[in-house]
Amino acid sequence: MTERVVLAYSGGLDTSVAIPYLAEQTGGEVVAVAVDLGQGGEDLEGIRKRALACGAVEAVVVDAREEFAADFCFAALRANALYMDRYPLVSALSRPLIVKHLVAAAKEHGGTTVSHGCTGKGNDQVRFEAGLSALAPELKVIAPARDFAWTRDKAIAFAEEKGLPIDVTSKSPYSIDQNLWGRAVETGFLEDIWNAPTEDVYAYTSDPAQPREADEVVITFKEGVPVALDGRELSPYRLVAELNRRAGAQGVGRLDMVEDRLVGIKSREVYEAPAAIALITAHQELENVTVERDLARFKRGVDQRWSELAYDGLWFSPLMDALDAFIGEAQKHVTGEIRMTLHGGRAVVTGRRSAASLYDYDLATYDTGDTFDQSLAKGFVELWSLPSKIAAKRDRLLG
Amino acid sequence: MTERVVLAYSGGLDTSVAIPYLAEQTGGEVVAVAVDLGQGGEDLEGIRKRALACGAVEAVVVDAREEFAADFCFAALRANALYMDRYPLVSALSRPLIVKHLVAAAKEHGGTTVSHGCTGKGNDQVRFEAGLSALAPELKVIAPARDFAWTRDKAIAFAEEKGLPIDVTSKSPYSIDQNLWGRAVETGFLEDIWNAPTEDVYAYTSDPAQPREADEVVITFKEGVPVALDGRELSPYRLVAELNRRAGAQGVGRLDMVEDRLVGIKSREVYEAPAAIALITAHQELENVTVERDLARFKRGVDQRWSELAYDGLWFSPLMDALDAFIGEAQKHVTGEIRMTLHGGRAVVTGRRSAASLYDYDLATYDTGDTFDQSLAKGFVELWSLPSKIAAKRDRLLG
Amino acid sequence: MTERVVLAYSGGLDTSVAIPYLAEQTGGEVVAVAVDLGQGGEDLEGIRKRALACGAVEAVVVDAREEFAADFCFAALRANALYMDRYPLVSALSRPLIVKHLVAAAKEHGGTTVSHGCTGKGNDQVRFEAGLSALAPELKVIAPARDFAWTRDKAIAFAEEKGLPIDVTSKSPYSIDQNLWGRAVETGFLEDIWNAPTEDVYAYTSDPAQPREADEVVITFKEGVPVALDGRELSPYRLVAELNRRAGAQGVGRLDMVEDRLVGIKSREVYEAPAAIALITAHQELENVTVERDLARFKRGVDQRWSELAYDGLWFSPLMDALDAFIGEAQKHVTGEIRMTLHGGRAVVTGRRSAASLYDYDLATYDTGDTFDQSLAKGFVELWSLPSKIAAKRDRLLG
Amino acid sequence: MTERVVLAYSGGLDTSVAIPYLAEQTGGEVVAVAVDLGQGGEDLEGIRKRALACGAVEAVVVDAREEFAADFCFAALRANALYMDRYPLVSALSRPLIVKHLVAAAKEHGGTTVSHGCTGKGNDQVRFEAGLSALAPELKVIAPARDFAWTRDKAIAFAEEKGLPIDVTSKSPYSIDQNLWGRAVETGFLEDIWNAPTEDVYAYTSDPAQPREADEVVITFKEGVPVALDGRELSPYRLVAELNRRAGAQGVGRLDMVEDRLVGIKSREVYEAPAAIALITAHQELENVTVERDLARFKRGVDQRWSELAYDGLWFSPLMDALDAFIGEAQKHVTGEIRMTLHGGRAVVTGRRSAASLYDYDLATYDTGDTFDQSLAKGFVELWSLPSKIAAKRDRLLG
Repeated sequence: MTERVVLAYSGGLDTSVAIPYLAEQTGGEVVAVAVDLGQGGEDLEGIRKRALACGAVEAVVVDAREEFAADFCFAALRANALYMDRYPLVSALSRPLIVKHLVAAAKEHGGTTVSHGCTGKGNDQVRFEAGLSALAPELKVIAPARDFAWTRDKAIAFAEEKGLPIDVTSKSPYSIDQNLWGRAVETGFLEDIWNAPTEDVYAYTSDPAQPREADEVVITFKEGVPVALDGRELSPYRLVAELNRRAGAQGVGRLDMVEDRLVGIKSREVYEAPAAIALITAHQELENVTVERDLARFKRGVDQRWSELAYDGLWFSPLMDALDAFIGEAQKHVTGEIRMTLHGGRAVVTGRRSAASLYDYDLATYDTGDTFDQSLAKGFVELWSLPSKIAAKRDRLLG
Repeated sequence: MTERVVLAYSGGLDTSVAIPYLAEQTGGEVVAVAVDLGQGGEDLEGIRKRALACGAVEAVVVDAREEFAADFCFAALRANALYMDRYPLVSALSRPLIVKHLVAAAKEHGGTTVSHGCTGKGNDQVRFEAGLSALAPELKVIAPARDFAWTRDKAIAFAEEKGLPIDVTSKSPYSIDQNLWGRAVETGFLEDIWNAPTEDVYAYTSDPAQPREADEVVITFKEGVPVALDGRELSPYRLVAELNRRAGAQGVGRLDMVEDRLVGIKSREVYEAPAAIALITAHQELENVTVERDLARFKRGVDQRWSELAYDGLWFSPLMDALDAFIGEAQKHVTGEIRMTLHGGRAVVTGRRSAASLYDYDLATYDTGDTFDQSLAKGFVELWSLPSKIAAKRDRLLG
Repeated sequence: MTERVVLAYSGGLDTSVAIPYLAEQTGGEVVAVAVDLGQGGEDLEGIRKRALACGAVEAVVVDAREEFAADFCFAALRANALYMDRYPLVSALSRPLIVKHLVAAAKEHGGTTVSHGCTGKGNDQVRFEAGLSALAPELKVIAPARDFAWTRDKAIAFAEEKGLPIDVTSKSPYSIDQNLWGRAVETGFLEDIWNAPTEDVYAYTSDPAQPREADEVVITFKEGVPVALDGRELSPYRLVAELNRRAGAQGVGRLDMVEDRLVGIKSREVYEAPAAIALITAHQELENVTVERDLARFKRGVDQRWSELAYDGLWFSPLMDALDAFIGEAQKHVTGEIRMTLHGGRAVVTGRRSAASLYDYDLATYDTGDTFDQSLAKGFVELWSLPSKIAAKRDRLLG
Repeated sequence: MTERVVLAYSGGLDTSVAIPYLAEQTGGEVVAVAVDLGQGGEDLEGIRKRALACGAVEAVVVDAREEFAADFCFAALRANALYMDRYPLVSALSRPLIVKHLVAAAKEHGGTTVSHGCTGKGNDQVRFEAGLSALAPELKVIAPARDFAWTRDKAIAFAEEKGLPIDVTSKSPYSIDQNLWGRAVETGFLEDIWNAPTEDVYAYTSDPAQPREADEVVITFKEGVPVALDGRELSPYRLVAELNRRAGAQGVGRLDMVEDRLVGIKSREVYEAPAAIALITAHQELENVTVERDLARFKRGVDQRWSELAYDGLWFSPLMDALDAFIGEAQKHVTGEIRMTLHGGRAVVTGRRSAASLYDYDLATYDTGDTFDQSLAKGFVELWSLPSKIAAKRDRLLG
């Protein structure tokens, strides 16, 4: 029987050309799998037809937008996931979901090999292959860019030689990955880290410096997950999409950073993630209101590790499951409303309310009616600082 | 011999009235100590005279602005100190320094008791008394507001009764603490956490929503500490003061949050810290460029603990010293320049350069000339994900 | 209606005398609650009668041995709970369970106040009162030893004065707390930390230096919890009790340490915990076999925090719940058998087997048949060490 | 000019045969480097002669015993370094030191390539090559066992073919690595993890089950480092060697565990480390006496990370330097004496004394003269548990 290669297919030049190329290299058949993660652009049916036109024996298209929002973006939100305190893990979140659908397609269509377009110096190869090794270690992997030194120029030449139905003339200067949770941009002039991004780098966000009317939004959370905007209940995908539009219109969520890649190098990355940044900001403040102090302090370390694991391609791992269990418990009472102003590139919390609030007006107020017994403080302060006091005394004695 | 009480003196109503009040309560003499931490307002000489007019036997004024900037603000900066990922520890940094000068004054002027104006439900009492217990455990402490239930109304009545030379009519609705590193505001209507701050709450920052020209600044760091703005070398105090002015004019550094107090309650706080936020943002990005990945990951936990300790009043503690040793080592190469745009409430890094950079263009670039050997990746990916792979296989076997 | 005080009652001198004393002090009635945690000694019925004889209006006795073993000791075991890497939290585990039963008794018998015998310088007052504040904050607390400076001498005088049916002549030189999980001893001569414990300090363990025949035991775990010894299924209480006997006979589980109390001082403690130490040793090794590396590494920090929380009296706290969720997930596959030799004070693992083992003979063996592909290692090593390599190069360049 | 290969040389069969083999494979000359780390066995001069007899152009022998003890073993001791809470990092500590001397030899003798005997599935390849990439990234690396699938059988055949002056007949069933800090043993029958080690596995330790007289030792530490035994000052090497002898004679320091290798697999390891285990036990207890609580708690995480880094081959890394700075500060007062009994496989602390002790008899004692003010406790307990109390109240309200 002919071997089948299941290809992670985007509809773009590189993966379109990869269809006949993989067939040629492996002597097998290619099954193209395109997954809609809310990246916008072309519709799935057009992509499906192009895959077939390029020679795929099967072209599977999956609308995974709600699954992506609910199971991946919102899992990240509950962890306030910001790699290096900045990057909301846009691409990192999508890879394990694509892997899930590649494995499903391999099972359905008899694939024995999986192929992806990643290079050998990026993070995504790790995320694909670590995911595959967890979900379907029996599948072989081919990454033409890495394993066969396949480049864009070779792809164009191959496309012309084979007469593939692909436009090879339009060439973006940018290398882009985008989905519902955000957009990542790399390009030549940004590789000089002293250069600032230019305005044309951005697509999800308007220029925050342009004067415009502010927008105000009230986000309702239930157990750490947003369920409504301004009181209207929305599905996970629709909620993030609407907030991307509204926060993006205000220039919220632009990021520009030098980042530690898993493969050991530093790279320059520019991101836009309007909804992600607004939601994480809101979620953090709702946690401030509803999560007890010791839990909140420990959770920061859990959140950081969660972000590192997701970034490092270890989504399907025992540690991730255990961190998720911790976070799930910590989210039990993260329920309530956050009011935010979106304006000038900023998403600013202006109000919070929650039936699960731990903020106690009667304890906190400096007005009369205060129920806090100040006489307790003296003993607390003394014993709180006793270990340092004893150590300081010792230090003075020893000189 | 008459006992002497060393009072942390601000020049305001409460501590002015405390001078005769403490003398009466203790039968002793009061030495007033005022410390200039860059809080602005009245000059030190005027404050000194008022203390004497209120009955202090000595009035000590200390210009600690450079000391505060260099030894406290910049120590915090090296730790990227943001309590709860938000608050740059404005008041928390000042208390240990005030304690140092109170202890020095007690030594010089024969004080046996120290007094401060903090209540029993705030953090500052802990910072004062923990500091004192480390530096001078032999000193007694009196906190009239906490220990004698001394209130503003009582203070006013007492001032009028004694005919003190203090204006008791002007009453700010806000409770404010400010210094070079920022400004903290609490007030009645903000105790309803659904209420947004009004514009009159702010003094260090202009309204970020007002259109204005952007400002651009280049900050030069040496071993984690800023030493120049736009190429001009500045002392620590002058540098922060200038940046407060410039970033404040752009509305940078406003914060509004619910916060976990050390005494166990949650409170609502509004802060402004224009220079602190701009500097921390710049410093973090310079660390991204110059600090190795594993060190950077571990340092996040160190930074968090540092912030907690400073917030929790444990500045003078063995753990703080050890964290500082870690951070000092980690800052050895945090040297270079960060270019930022200050505008519309945002401080955005647009460029970074450093002789100590770990960003390697030749490894990072996708252009030709790339020196990264992609063939290494396959083995890396396989072994990186091997533990998860083995665990996933086990999980499938067990069902 | 007469107020009722619910007293944590041990049957000993101090709490027996406390019955009439509390009645006198409060003008109320006393309900005595004795909880059997496997501490041995007198039977519950005798204790009940003594409480009534001393004037209690109700005397409640609770056999909580299985509950203690299953819900408290085994929760600690799953966390490998050793405070300061040594102390298996003997007393710390029992206090929250006693609190639960005190609260239940207060509900049933109309108590409005709870009383315990702890002093103000130990940990147990915190554990009692933190537990009560979580479970029943409406209850008042009286701790006669702390709040009324009630001492043993006063108790004896009071007992003689009132003619209480208690033997006040026998006086142990030791202060002892013991339960199923172990035994804690404090005494005067051990307060000199240069003094070694003498043999008469110990009751759960024989002298490990005495020659005797070794014992071998196979412990079966299911999801992190021991369920059988040598193939015989046993209830949690019976299993720990049998292992206490067998490991104790071999001198296993003696501990002697200087410990950091929650109230800020260091104290000298001697413990015996034969079953606890044997079980934790076995459990750790079964985790080595069945828990994936990254999870195991992170779990160490979780385990440490768990131990600190339990020690610090925060059993009923949101962080504890979240740590338990993490640990629960991590224990899903900690199932299998550990063979141990108990001898000469040591509990030594000699064999382990598990259907959930992650140890893969085919990957690990150096014999032929090895399935590990060594060619992968080179790429792994290169990328693994790349960040350090780049940093070292930078360091050399900068001199 | 002929290329030169610098070979890490043990004097054994494999690396002896590697001399002519590497010369043949590379067309170059071989410089053999043997480092004495206190592993005992043959003297260095004999090893040097064998290297030359096998064809080395240079044979360098280095007595690094004191350097190893002072800079590597004692650095580990200050970190209480136990990988997975068990393994004192015997082999892991030696590799970076060997690398240092290989690099020095390469510089002195014009080497351009370094060679080691490690396989591709162990940790030591990583430690060698990560060390080399930090200290001398310009050097190439050859690992014949991994890169040329060189096996013991091939080595024997090659030795016979070339007539090398090596005894190829004696064959130990054990794979052993040993040095001053301990001894590691792997072997076929131990690869079945249900099998117990047999007595002949051990060489540094006597059978702990044999009855014998106990030994007592007093260890003097200065800033975390042992400097004297029973009052006699000893150099680092001599101190560890003597303690190996004395603790080994009592069977102290045997370990048997399943371990997480860096390359992603689990392996079975048996170790003996009599001095290391005795010293770490003593050091931990001296820390209990002299290190403040918060510092001690945080240091556990630092120590764990230190152990992981050392195990994972990242000795020469920026994080290691920063952890060492933390630990150095934390050791400033770890000065004093620990008395231990060595007996029956156990090293048990029986006494501790230190001028830097934080144990305060007057605070700790339950005798009269106690200076601890118990009235402070009530306020402490209330505020300590306030966050949990508020959270528990919320939880009850929400049901």
